[in-house]
Amino acid sequence: MKDYIQHHEWRIIEPKFDPSVNRISESLFSIGNGKFGQRANFEEDYSGDSLRGSYVAGVYYPDPTRVGWWKNGYPDYFAKVINSTNWIGIRVAVDGENLDLARCQLESFERVLDMQDGVLSRRFIAQLPSGKRIQVEATRFTSIVDTDNGAIRYAVTPLNFEGEIRFTPYLDLDVVNADSNYDEKFWLETARHADPQVAYLCGETKKTGFRLGVAARFNLTLDGESKTPAATVHDRDCFVGQEVAIQAKQGQTATLYKYAALISCLNVAEGQIDAAACDSAAAAQAKGFDRMLAEHTAAWHAKWQQADIRIEGDVAAQQGIRFNIFHMNQTYTGEDARLNIGPKGFTGEKYGGVTYWDTEAYCLPFYLKTADPQVARQLLIYRHNHLENAIKNAEKLGFSDGAALYPMVTINGEECHNEWEITFEEIHRNGAIAFAIYNYLNHTGDADYLADYGLEVLIGISRFWRQRVQWSERRGGYVMLGVTGPNEYSNNVNNNWYTNKIAQWTLAYTAEALAKVEAEAPEKLAALLEKVKFNGKEDELAIWAQIREHILLPVDDQTGVFVQYDGFMDKELKPMSEIPAAEYPIHQHWSWDRILRSCYIKQADVLQGVYLFEEEFDLDTIRRNYDFYEPMTVHESSLSPCIHAILAAKLGYEDRAYKFYLRTSRLDLDDYNNDTEDGLHITSMAGTWMAVVEGFGGARVHDGVLSLRPFIPDQWRSYAFKITFKGALLNVVVNQEDVQIENQSDTAIELQLFDRSCRVEPRATLVHPVEAPALGQAS
Amino acid sequence: MKDYIQHHEWRIIEPKFDPSVNRISESLFSIGNGKFGQRANFEEDYSGDSLRGSYVAGVYYPDPTRVGWWKNGYPDYFAKVINSTNWIGIRVAVDGENLDLARCQLESFERVLDMQDGVLSRRFIAQLPSGKRIQVEATRFTSIVDTDNGAIRYAVTPLNFEGEIRFTPYLDLDVVNADSNYDEKFWLETARHADPQVAYLCGETKKTGFRLGVAARFNLTLDGESKTPAATVHDRDCFVGQEVAIQAKQGQTATLYKYAALISCLNVAEGQIDAAACDSAAAAQAKGFDRMLAEHTAAWHAKWQQADIRIEGDVAAQQGIRFNIFHMNQTYTGEDARLNIGPKGFTGEKYGGVTYWDTEAYCLPFYLKTADPQVARQLLIYRHNHLENAIKNAEKLGFSDGAALYPMVTINGEECHNEWEITFEEIHRNGAIAFAIYNYLNHTGDADYLADYGLEVLIGISRFWRQRVQWSERRGGYVMLGVTGPNEYSNNVNNNWYTNKIAQWTLAYTAEALAKVEAEAPEKLAALLEKVKFNGKEDELAIWAQIREHILLPVDDQTGVFVQYDGFMDKELKPMSEIPAAEYPIHQHWSWDRILRSCYIKQADVLQGVYLFEEEFDLDTIRRNYDFYEPMTVHESSLSPCIHAILAAKLGYEDRAYKFYLRTSRLDLDDYNNDTEDGLHITSMAGTWMAVVEGFGGARVHDGVLSLRPFIPDQWRSYAFKITFKGALLNVVVNQEDVQIENQSDTAIELQLFDRSCRVEPRATLVHPVEAPALGQAS
Repeated sequence: MKDYIQHHEWRIIEPKFDPSVNRISESLFSIGNGKFGQRANFEEDYSGDSLRGSYVAGVYYPDPTRVGWWKNGYPDYFAKVINSTNWIGIRVAVDGENLDLARCQLESFERVLDMQDGVLSRRFIAQLPSGKRIQVEATRFTSIVDTDNGAIRYAVTPLNFEGEIRFTPYLDLDVVNADSNYDEKFWLETARHADPQVAYLCGETKKTGFRLGVAARFNLTLDGESKTPAATVHDRDCFVGQEVAIQAKQGQTATLYKYAALISCLNVAEGQIDAAACDSAAAAQAKGFDRMLAEHTAAWHAKWQQADIRIEGDVAAQQGIRFNIFHMNQTYTGEDARLNIGPKGFTGEKYGGVTYWDTEAYCLPFYLKTADPQVARQLLIYRHNHLENAIKNAEKLGFSDGAALYPMVTINGEECHNEWEITFEEIHRNGAIAFAIYNYLNHTGDADYLADYGLEVLIGISRFWRQRVQWSERRGGYVMLGVTGPNEYSNNVNNNWYTNKIAQWTLAYTAEALAKVEAEAPEKLAALLEKVKFNGKEDELAIWAQIREHILLPVDDQTGVFVQYDGFMDKELKPMSEIPAAEYPIHQHWSWDRILRSCYIKQADVLQGVYLFEEEFDLDTIRRNYDFYEPMTVHESSLSPCIHAILAAKLGYEDRAYKFYLRTSRLDLDDYNNDTEDGLHITSMAGTWMAVVEGFGGARVHDGVLSLRPFIPDQWRSYAFKITFKGALLNVVVNQEDVQIENQSDTAIELQLFDRSCRVEPRATLVHPVEAPALGQAS
Repeated sequence: MKDYIQHHEWRIIEPKFDPSVNRISESLFSIGNGKFGQRANFEEDYSGDSLRGSYVAGVYYPDPTRVGWWKNGYPDYFAKVINSTNWIGIRVAVDGENLDLARCQLESFERVLDMQDGVLSRRFIAQLPSGKRIQVEATRFTSIVDTDNGAIRYAVTPLNFEGEIRFTPYLDLDVVNADSNYDEKFWLETARHADPQVAYLCGETKKTGFRLGVAARFNLTLDGESKTPAATVHDRDCFVGQEVAIQAKQGQTATLYKYAALISCLNVAEGQIDAAACDSAAAAQAKGFDRMLAEHTAAWHAKWQQADIRIEGDVAAQQGIRFNIFHMNQTYTGEDARLNIGPKGFTGEKYGGVTYWDTEAYCLPFYLKTADPQVARQLLIYRHNHLENAIKNAEKLGFSDGAALYPMVTINGEECHNEWEITFEEIHRNGAIAFAIYNYLNHTGDADYLADYGLEVLIGISRFWRQRVQWSERRGGYVMLGVTGPNEYSNNVNNNWYTNKIAQWTLAYTAEALAKVEAEAPEKLAALLEKVKFNGKEDELAIWAQIREHILLPVDDQTGVFVQYDGFMDKELKPMSEIPAAEYPIHQHWSWDRILRSCYIKQADVLQGVYLFEEEFDLDTIRRNYDFYEPMTVHESSLSPCIHAILAAKLGYEDRAYKFYLRTSRLDLDDYNNDTEDGLHITSMAGTWMAVVEGFGGARVHDGVLSLRPFIPDQWRSYAFKITFKGALLNVVVNQEDVQIENQSDTAIELQLFDRSCRVEPRATLVHPVEAPALGQAS
């Protein structure tokens, strides 16, 4: 854990420069706009420790698989969103002395990410080895309005001398991925141009052939007055730029404005990329830094209007939750169904920047309640676009007849992961996709989506479950052998309750969805059933019904809890509090076999199911399972605490709910897991949001109706969150006395508050006292 | 499967050259002497496909681990016996034209491994691109008398011209391993010398610092008459040699003799290696090729005298079994307790040339019955020498108080393997080592070994089992969770019957051994118990007794068979005959999850236990388990068929016993698994021997008494095998009518033949009719 980030409601502030945490800051201060993103690397040269990263959404490289021992069925490659053209580079020299913070004395330094405005800035006073002192102010953003553009303002002021300030804004394609299996470079240069006004580089990824054109233009001012000194053009392999020098008196400020445009073949036809990039850079330059910034900032303010969470009385918590919301919004915008949310977003290379079940289980609920329904819909369309590959993926594993298994990790629908116990066995991910469809329908009632896309996906997934279970005469039921549940600390188990449960639920929901589409759009259904050859070999609905009825979901007769999987109760069951502190986290201290045969649970497993299907269970059942499993849960996934916070809140374990919330809200800001340098835990940030809105706020959507049951942690004066639901935008404010539901839209909304129906008229506010939780604090 | 090897009782013959199978032949025709070994690469240059391999026992490199996903507890490296100095090289030029079989027309070609003599030879007539025709005869051996030496006779005869034959015998240390994780070279040159008489190279392995000095000398003759033309010396980095030319008339034979000496720091102090190698090469040269060959050949004849199996009426079977015995004997001689038997011996790089449980379970029984007891004893001393590391290995996994877990794969006692389901979970290997101690004692009664070494190992292993099980209140017994049995097609299972059984047996045998040493050498016992702090924290014997009594070994109530592991009976149980032919072998066609949730068994698992502990079970029990498990067994390990052959023979399933025998006996010769090019399946060769002697011969040793119950396959006229037992050497001849037991030693022996006691006097022969198997053919 680290504690160098200064607390502030809206800003992330690094108040002094510590090279030993530079990689962490580079992650924390990353900016992006859904189309591309950039780690907080310095514009000027830096010879100290740094992980340079510029990432362009959807541009990936199939890095050939490297494993110790090959298993049949492993994928050939792991798709990686890759480090791309460095567009931020500005070399700075002062009277011929290169600026490099690793070689300067810093009198002051501040790096600030203004989350309200979406702007990264840096201000420092440095003394160069020669003794010359300069002040630098660097400001940049990746525009969420001009989404192909990034802009930089880089201002240098001599403090104790008069001299030459020399800038070399450049583009560099000679980049590597730190995380490359065979130390390959992934880019080939395909076009290059440099003249005194514009620099341009086009690269193509090896194998995948993605084209990325990056153009840059610049302006120069001295104390605000435009200057156009002669430029020396740099033009060599994978590198273009212009070198310009200006004479500045002591106290005068030389400012370079750099406008970059990044255009990939995802958005522009290959032959037009060069022109589009150069045009876009020119347009940005013409619009100018200030106007671009103003529009960008206004757009961020609008985003916050829809998605903010406000916490009063706890600046650290306030900063933490906004940091999470900020990164969720700059990682994914829902504008392009070919994109998704990598575990590290645009903040690092780890996990390859590809899609996990995190998207459906954690991110989708966030976007569903904080953004236009279109955003969540795009995430679902992404999976529908991959259905064919999911069917091929299942075929590779021996399934047939349209059974679909979505990959554990993917960028294009093909499986990337290569650990058998995960790749082949952690199949509950399929259920998370089905549940996300339900969740989306429940929030939006979007019947067209269901008929046009959702049902086809549901049928593919249900067919997979149907083939993946088998009848056991011995057990008198359907069993599902050899799986890994969400608790990855148990591998290759039989009858994982969560997986069996979500399979059962999928089969039921698919039948329900089928009936719904039959009622609402019978022609669409007929066409779909024809397309997927429904009931080709057997009466599929009948068999699904049988499996639903007879799939094993054992309840332990001694404790009354759902049995996590066959044999779990044979283990030595003891609380995680018995693990010596020095052996925690166990995945860094215990060998894998020891973890596997222990009772310890990595993240919610039975409780993940209890959370998803809570409507099916009475509070006693939820409490029984929570009280049994939570003490054995080590929360060694960043996705774990939020589910426990939500359940704890539901059960009235308010202190525990708050404790679990704290564990995730500043996970990256305080570098709890010592891995922020690799990038941020983007997908688990959505979980933190869930902990507030579903946990503290008690927000649920059942049968298309929003319900709330808020409580407020003692530590807070008040908190407020936004919910977008069926056209209404609510601001829910909770303080120690009452709940205020402010309808900020023109749409009235019916909802449940503390189990009572109420209606909030447009632009009206409903006030209601906070009530005690349903079952008190008993345990 | 391939079929290009010509059948012959004593010889392996490749009757023509096919470059596409050259790597296979290079494996098949490998020679070695326990200290070093050599693939059957050509002496002269060869630009075609080839895997060059010269291996020196005990000289290894710790190749850094490379895995896809790291698990805590994985070893840092995989120790590999590595490709070493190429000592066989002789460059040959004819009138300036380099001899390279890839560029010649071959009029004839024959590669022959004479197993009786232990000699590899090659004879061919080649037409060079110029049209010149030469005959070449190359003969080499790795002496089992002068065990530091290899010798080569290389004779060239011009057939249609008179011209210059130019030889360059050389040594080359610029070698690589095909199987290197990071494409590193493993050797550094530390000394080099070349003059017209002697070439010398000394290398040191990186990291491990093993020194290997190789010296070579040569002679030249023309039609048998010694010649000493001036030599040009080659002397450059990692390469030394001499170039000599001789004028030969048509029909005259120019012969180069090359004498190499390989001396490693395992056997000679570092400072003396250079001199020792040069002296040894000189001594070999002084002794001369013919005398070296004669002594070597005589020594091989003596080995055959002790270990041969003779089969009449089936040349293919005869060749197959002798091939196996030959390789077992040239791989390991028992002279050095630091050495062991790698899965590929000296014939390839795969599996790193390190020690698996194959040694104890398969190889040790072979050496126990065909060699001096000292040979098997050395294999056990090897493990005793590694006891300290086995204890450290267990500590790394969380065990304590002297519990020992021997590695899955090792060269120096440290674990090398890096698949969690094997490395951490395939712990039955520990039991195989305990059983080998019992087996050795049973054959030899060597009380000193038990007191001095064996018991300490047994205590370490028993302590491991004691800590690895845990009491389950639910099951009312001790359970062992999270293991992989010998059937590696089931991972992370609970209560694998074989593992629980061998753990139970170890605990019992350790107590028995302790009592035996107490009775025979109480002072030794007292010292040992003091050393290992026996009964330090608890009454160890009492707890062992409890575990023995209460460990779970479930019998299925419906079928009466031992349950392979918890939940096995929930699977869809069906015979392997239901696997479509196109999907076989399943490990090449099915994804791992599919294999895991199927009922299919890679190799004997329950049946491995039934085989080891057959005395405990009546024939009905053995039959019940065999009939149940064998049909589900896919035998995708080369170690599987032999155990089934032995059990089938015992049950009177003679046809099946023969069928299983055939599957292994020519595994490499006919390249059944398409992998002989990587090297031979050395350790499973011992299994083939077991199939004959324990299967067809019915040989067992119970309570220190040898028993025999031979039958003869219909396809054979007769077969004969040798057994060395308690000082006696028996030749057991079985034909379709009777069994002849010829005592070829001066020691009388008492044995059981068809369950009746008999005695065979020195130099006498006992003849007895073949009897029907115990229970007929019923099934």
